[in-house]
Amino acid sequence: MSKITLHPIGILHCGLTKAEHTPKNFTESSEIGALEIKEQYRAGLEGINPGDTIIVLFWFNQADRTLLKVHPRGDKSRPMRGVFSTRSPARPNPIAISELLVTAIAGTMISVTGVDALDQTPILDIKKNLCSKGQ
Amino acid sequence: MSKITLHPIGILHCGLTKAEHTPKNFTESSEIGALEIKEQYRAGLEGINPGDTIIVLFWFNQADRTLLKVHPRGDKSRPMRGVFSTRSPARPNPIAISELLVTAIAGTMISVTGVDALDQTPILDIKKNLCSKGQ
Repeated sequence: MSKITLHPIGILHCGLTKAEHTPKNFTESSEIGALEIKEQYRAGLEGINPGDTIIVLFWFNQADRTLLKVHPRGDKSRPMRGVFSTRSPARPNPIAISELLVTAIAGTMISVTGVDALDQTPILDIKKNLCSKGQ
Repeated sequence: MSKITLHPIGILHCGLTKAEHTPKNFTESSEIGALEIKEQYRAGLEGINPGDTIIVLFWFNQADRTLLKVHPRGDKSRPMRGVFSTRSPARPNPIAISELLVTAIAGTMISVTGVDALDQTPILDIKKNLCSKGQ
């Protein structure tokens, strides 16, 4: 298999519009936002409730897909490492994992806290959480 | 953005060849396997060491991408739920998350334990772990 095609299931709405102001990851974020899921996927949301923490996979469409080594957390005082040993957004397939707390659901809109991605970031998937925030 | 193209970074080798024998998720698995990463991505592996737990994203190429509701864990005695509130492999973009323990590295081959995916499953990404197995 040499090529895989994905279609986003929705999009993130939030107040983060600049990468340099975006928390490095969900464990460091108190930002709020909303996941707008496409109507065609509505049935897939049944069983998600306020108070749940969910795993959300985002497509980091602004990430550099050619970088294989980076300074961890963008800190140039630290030696470069392979992207696969970091959480850098830059990587060949820039899929980001966030763990978000659901605060409300209305139809296909899901309000969440802990956002660490830019406004208008495409959403690829939502999953039940198997591990807890900060652990 | 209506379509996204991914290229696998490698492939999983393991003894699991039938879905019905495959652990439901990594927290329930003691299976071993090896991640074979393509030579062109070798630099991205620098900084991964034996003893690390890593997050691996797999592409479940045999999953049904049309299902939006499933019986959790395939248990027909449980009511159907939306796929996004489960860890079902069936979902519109079947990207699976595993947390695996690295036991050895030789070049672009990484030996791991905790495998919960079929032999020959494409690998999309590897990340540093932010949360721990079983928690």
